[in-house]
Formats: sequence, C-alpha cells, structure tokens
Amino acid sequence: MRRLTALLIAGAASLLAAPSASAATREYWVAAVPATWNIVPNGRDAIMGMEYPTADTVFGTVVYRRYTKGWGKPLANVPSGSGNSNLMPGPLIKAREGDKLRVHFKNLDTAFKRPHSMHFHGVHYKPSSDGAYLPGFSGRDANVKPGQTWTYKLTAGSDSVGAWPYHDHGPEMEASIDGGMWGMLSILGKHEQAPDREFVVVFSPMGKFQAIDGRAFVGNTPVFHSREGDLVQWDVMAMGSEHHTFHVHGHRWKTPDGRDVDTVTVGPAESIRVRWREKEPGTWLYHCHVETHMAAGMIGTYQVNAS
Amino acid sequence: MRRLTALLIAGAASLLAAPSASAATREYWVAAVPATWNIVPNGRDAIMGMEYPTADTVFGTVVYRRYTKGWGKPLANVPSGSGNSNLMPGPLIKAREGDKLRVHFKNLDTAFKRPHSMHFHGVHYKPSSDGAYLPGFSGRDANVKPGQTWTYKLTAGSDSVGAWPYHDHGPEMEASIDGGMWGMLSILGKHEQAPDREFVVVFSPMGKFQAIDGRAFVGNTPVFHSREGDLVQWDVMAMGSEHHTFHVHGHRWKTPDGRDVDTVTVGPAESIRVRWREKEPGTWLYHCHVETHMAAGMIGTYQVNAS
Amino acid sequence: MRRLTALLIAGAASLLAAPSASAATREYWVAAVPATWNIVPNGRDAIMGMEYPTADTVFGTVVYRRYTKGWGKPLANVPSGSGNSNLMPGPLIKAREGDKLRVHFKNLDTAFKRPHSMHFHGVHYKPSSDGAYLPGFSGRDANVKPGQTWTYKLTAGSDSVGAWPYHDHGPEMEASIDGGMWGMLSILGKHEQAPDREFVVVFSPMGKFQAIDGRAFVGNTPVFHSREGDLVQWDVMAMGSEHHTFHVHGHRWKTPDGRDVDTVTVGPAESIRVRWREKEPGTWLYHCHVETHMAAGMIGTYQVNAS
Repeated sequence: MRRLTALLIAGAASLLAAPSASAATREYWVAAVPATWNIVPNGRDAIMGMEYPTADTVFGTVVYRRYTKGWGKPLANVPSGSGNSNLMPGPLIKAREGDKLRVHFKNLDTAFKRPHSMHFHGVHYKPSSDGAYLPGFSGRDANVKPGQTWTYKLTAGSDSVGAWPYHDHGPEMEASIDGGMWGMLSILGKHEQAPDREFVVVFSPMGKFQAIDGRAFVGNTPVFHSREGDLVQWDVMAMGSEHHTFHVHGHRWKTPDGRDVDTVTVGPAESIRVRWREKEPGTWLYHCHVETHMAAGMIGTYQVNAS
Repeated sequence: MRRLTALLIAGAASLLAAPSASAATREYWVAAVPATWNIVPNGRDAIMGMEYPTADTVFGTVVYRRYTKGWGKPLANVPSGSGNSNLMPGPLIKAREGDKLRVHFKNLDTAFKRPHSMHFHGVHYKPSSDGAYLPGFSGRDANVKPGQTWTYKLTAGSDSVGAWPYHDHGPEMEASIDGGMWGMLSILGKHEQAPDREFVVVFSPMGKFQAIDGRAFVGNTPVFHSREGDLVQWDVMAMGSEHHTFHVHGHRWKTPDGRDVDTVTVGPAESIRVRWREKEPGTWLYHCHVETHMAAGMIGTYQVNAS
Repeated sequence: MRRLTALLIAGAASLLAAPSASAATREYWVAAVPATWNIVPNGRDAIMGMEYPTADTVFGTVVYRRYTKGWGKPLANVPSGSGNSNLMPGPLIKAREGDKLRVHFKNLDTAFKRPHSMHFHGVHYKPSSDGAYLPGFSGRDANVKPGQTWTYKLTAGSDSVGAWPYHDHGPEMEASIDGGMWGMLSILGKHEQAPDREFVVVFSPMGKFQAIDGRAFVGNTPVFHSREGDLVQWDVMAMGSEHHTFHVHGHRWKTPDGRDVDTVTVGPAESIRVRWREKEPGTWLYHCHVETHMAAGMIGTYQVNAS
C-alpha cells in the first residue's frame, strides 16, 4: 500500500511536471528584471586551481524571470534541485504538440531602462508575436518599454517538437543577449513520453568567461543528476557569436539520421534535444569541446546514481 | 480563354525559367570583370540608426558576370526582381540531373590583371575542369590569365541535386574570394518540381562588414518576395573563414533526416537547399544568428504576400 | 595459380590489417614520448611560393607512440606508405563491434615531465577508464605521472561503429592537445567490409600554422593514394578551438541522412567517417575550406590511379 501510494504520487508529480496529451492553452508570466549576477560564485576554477576575485566575476544585468499570474510574485525559473541556477536561463517554457502558448511579458527593467522583447524559435505565430525590432515594420511586440507589457501568442505545431531558443530581439538585443536574456522552449510530441530528467544547457560567453547557464567552471556550472534507468533529456543551445561542440563523457546518442555521436557542433541559436535511457552510473563531465572554451569555464558534472 | 492563355503563358515562363526534364547541354558564358562595389548603398544601418560614409563602403574588385554567347554583351547575373543584387553573387548556374554544363570563362580583369579560375562543387568533372591551382599539377583551367579563356566541362549526376558553391581557386584565390568572386549552382532532380521562387543567400565578410550577397544591413541586403502557396527555395552558402547560422523568422523547415529546424550552421563552402510551401504572410527577417555578424549587417527581409 | 596465390595473400593481408568478425580482445601498447617535430619539413608553401626557416617550424613536444608488448620497442604509429606521418596522429586504434580493447599506456615524458592520460570517444567504459582529470573525483587513469602506467578498458558497442577521437585529458590537457597528443579510433560494424584504403585526417592549429596530422602545406601534409575501384575511407576529426570544413575535390559522398555533400563542418572533437568506391582518377586536393586555414597550410593531395 505504501508502495502503491508512492507510485500514485510519482504519477501525479509527473502529470504536473509534463504537459498532458490533450491540447491546451498554457500561460506563462515572465518579466525582464534587473539582477546582480555572479558568473563564478565560488571564485575558482577547480580543475586549474585558479582563483578569481569577486570584482572580476559579478556584474549587473537584466534577465527573464518567471512570475505568478498577473506578475504578482516572482518565482524561481526552475524547480529547485533541477541542477539549473535560478535566473539563467529564463523559465523553461513547456508545451505539447497542438498546445497554444500565451507568454505574458512585462518589462521591469528599472536598472538600465532599456526596451526589451521576447522572440521565440520553433513555434508558429503571426508577425505581431515575432518580437523582432525592425524600424518601420515591427510593432510594440518588439519594443516593450519599461513598465509596458505584451502577450506573445504562440502555437506548437507538429514541426515544433524539440528544444528551441527564445531571447530578446528588441532594439538593444546585443547587450541583452550578452547579459543573459535567453531561455528555452521544450515541446513534446502529442503522445511522446516526458523525460524523467530534463537538463537545460545554454552555451554563451559571459564577460571573459565561457559559461553554461551563466556560470563558469566545475563547482559553479549546473550539476545534473539522474538514476540508472531514467529517460534523460538534454536541451542544448548556444547564444552569442561563437560555435561550440557539446560533449558528454561515457555516453553516446543517436542523431535523427541514425548516427551515433558523443560530440556535436552547436552554433548561435542552434538547438538540439538529446535523449537516452541512462545506464552508466558514475560522475561524468559534460562540456564544450572547444579547448579555449573549456579552459574558460564551459564544463560541468553529471552524476548518475546506480539504481 | 483568357484564363487558359494565362496558364499557357505561365507554363511557357516556367519552361524558360527551369531546365526541362530531358537531359541537355547547358552553356553559360561568364567573365571575370572589374567592378566598383558599394557594400552599403544607402549608407546606413536601419536597425541601429548608424550612418556609414561612402568612403568606408565602396571598393574596387573583380566579380563573375554573365554574358551573351561568345562574351558578346554583359547581362545581369540575375533576373530583375529576383531580390538579388546584380553582380554578387555570380550568375546562378542551373541544371537538371543528367545535364551536361559547359561554362565558358574569360578573364577580363583589366583592373588588377590577376589570373583567375572557376572551381565548382557538387558536379562531376575531370581534373582539367577542376580549376584549382597547384604548381606542378594543375593546368590552364586553374590559371586563366587576363585575356585568356577556358571552358569547364561539368556533368550533373544524381548526387549533384541541390545547391552548391563555385568560386575562384586560382593562384590568388584568397583576394578573389574576399572580393566576391563566387556564385552558386542549383541542380534539380530529374523529375523534381522547380520552385516558384528561388533565393540565393551567400554569407561572407566584406571589409569590416558581414554581408549577404555582398551587401550589409536591411535596406541594402536582398529583399526576397513570395506569395502564400508558393514553393520557395533558399540556396544558402558561406564563403570566407567564418561559420554562420542561417535563420528565418516565423518559419521552420525539414532537414533531410526529418528534423524540424529554423537555424542551421553553415561553414565556409558548405551549402544547403531549404524548401517550403509558403503559408506565413508578413514581413519577416532572415539573418545569420551569430550576434556580431548580425550587428555588422548580415540581415535582410523576406516579404510574403497573402494569396 | 599465380593469381590465386595473389588473392590468398591479399586475403591474409586484409585479415591482418582489419579486425576479424569474431569478438576479440585487442591490446595496444602506447606511450607518451618526447619528440622534436617539424611542421613544415620541406620549409615551403608550394602554392604561395613562400619559404619558412626551420627555426619557425620545429618545436619540442610530446606525442603518443605505439610500442611492442610491454613497451619493449617503439613502432611506427602507422604502416609505411599509408600517407600519414609517423608520430602524429597517435596509433590508429582499430576494433570491430563487440570487441574489447585494452590500451596499455605508459608516460615516458622525460622532457616536460608532465602528467598525461588517454580519453577515448565513442566506446563504452567505466569511470576508471575515462582518463579525464577532475580533482576530488578522478583517479590515476586521469593523472598518469612520468614513469607510471595505466590500462584503459574499453568495449566497442553497436553504437561505437565509426571514427572517433582520443586525446590527453590530464591536468595539462591544453598544452598536450596543442602539441599533438591525439589520435583516432576506427571501429567497424560486426560484418562490415573493411576499407581498401583508410586515411586519417586531423585538423588542428599548430603554432602559427594550420595543420593536417601535424604538417602544413602541400608537400608536407599526407599524400593519400588509392586506385580506381578501391573502397576508400576517410577518418576525419578536429582538435583545438576552431571549426573547420572538410572538402575533397572531384568527389561527393552520402551523409547518413542521404544528402550528397562535398564539404562538411567538423568542430573540435567532432569526427566523421566518409566512404566511397573510388572512380575518379587524377590528383585531387583535399583541404579545410576555411580560407585562412587553407592559406596557413591545411591542404594536401590525394592521388587516384586508374585501374
């Protein structure tokens, strides 16, 4: 009976965590908010044994933050224990094929007072939800000024299944992207199994460092956890101006064309979804395999517990 | 009757525009000609509101130009209204699987007096049509001096279907490629439908700018047009020394392995052919998603009219 | 009879050269050894006609070298006449699906006295054979000090078929990779035909040059040979911090998703296996198509004899 209850609770949790198979309208409340961000919270590169003073690793920026309905109260962008830090990337926007998405965005950038926007890859929308600034053509969706709001109306089609970027595409896009205004969408097929574990990996330069989800060096980058037998999913993308190669130690995965790989190129705004059934207990490295990026912090650990 | 005539005219136009399904020998007359090229004809970056003086955007160069038979008279490289500018890229060389191509090349570089050549990707040829300079091995095909000519003999095989680069591969290849001596081949399958609209996108650095078909910034880069229902085809490649990511707003397309994407890496001399049936009216951006490239001009607009 | 003997000898040679179809344990003895390496042995760039003094092209480094059992005697890393030079890349480690590999490694780095390791892509192993240095987690496999040894225990699964990198992943990995401590694994499917010719191409920067297998410029880079009718296989990877595009003149090949290509992106630690049945006699160029890389030496020749 205790075991049955546990299973039922696990089932309920999974229903809560993953969108259900019936088409729905999913609402997200997101704001652009000022943040003080530390790229290297523990102040060190554990592998090379180097120390970095806080003055070199902290900066003021603007990020996407999840809120309760009507921007009532700020929320963590990700569930605690997911391995991801709490403000970069922005909230993981989840849907299932056939769903509509309503992403309500408010510009609360009181620090820099810059206009902002949200531009989504992978989903269907009309030009008024494109969020890309182009003088003479674009509207308020692409130029949400401090204090203003916009609702982006998106639909997940059968060609939207996968992991995709979203990011600021307003008039000052470059500064925003360098500062961490990006996140991911994760869209499941109509009857596709939700993963047991989902890891979001965003490769981006950050100041003089090369970061994963805004953090640099083992000990600061996300520590992802799974258990033998889990269906794990990696949502991987790059933001900025450089190409990367995503590598996980001790694992291989199938690409859609049937190749087995353990290292793949990911360029700016490219995104891949990698899945496997976990069977390799141990502590493994995941990293960008560009040597200078790895040395500048683009590396983390993945811990698989034996079942 | 009026409608029938219109259909017949449309049919005839389509026969003229696209190679027919019976194997043929197609002849092109091309010359290397001096040109004065303006990377930013309107002198401004419309998105950032920056002005660029003509002195910073104009340079003398050598390009491929299409000619009538026997290099009698110069032609525009592309039909007017195609969205592409008239000298970069070089003429779009079209064929169908099974066709032979005879590309007659003349070096009319009276400005720099450099030797030139044409090297074609994707098609079958003997070493004497390779056009790549290698002292001790290559012949006149790879080192066509000012005033000289060469005919490249190419065959489109079943493995040639797609979009491919051609470019100078002579003794001073680097200067030529930096200066815009490149173009594309577009090969259809034996019974493949010709697209209603075909857009050629060449990503390359040009001076301090990042250009599409030799132009930088919205207002200078090609404006591509289509209508709802059109079969549109993008022929995309990169030239130079940098990797790019090709992105179109509001659209996704299937890669040959069945993935749905809206952003893909294109490295130097890589080329992709992207097709879709248009159904998204609006004005959309297409661009390289490398942030510094986009900021340096590698962005344009695509206008889809409602049917 | 003479013909039959020739066939039998050819068959025996092929059995020796390629792993057989029954699962086996294959042992390799490898050491890290000091070497004086010349990136441009003939001192010139034949295409541009430039000379390079020896002082600019020779440096001291550490490489992987194949040995007889028990590290008794050093061997050449590759059979003579294979086209590859004798110390970069490290020994080509060959196996068939289902095989176990035992790679016995000894650190004989008496010159720099650095710790070293071997980290293998593509194959199955336990964390104790990962070879990647991570303070607090990794063991001696990742930090083999001068004079010490370690045996890496690997298994080639059905998802290991292809060409893969191996490289140093010890505490001073960056210096090692810049200096040439890398090689490739080549794994055949259980019943897959072994190629008649196998070419290993490693793109990496080397000092101010861009090298293939540690050499720069035609005349120094490997000259690969085949004959019409041969099944040829190219094992291609990149090491370091840059993305490349692998191009062969006069040829196209099918990617696993059915595309025909002649140029593909290869980023750091990405690897591809390219195969074709040769039918294009001539002297052809193979090169990285990144213009600055090609100009800095990343180009070689491939000679196909008529049958």
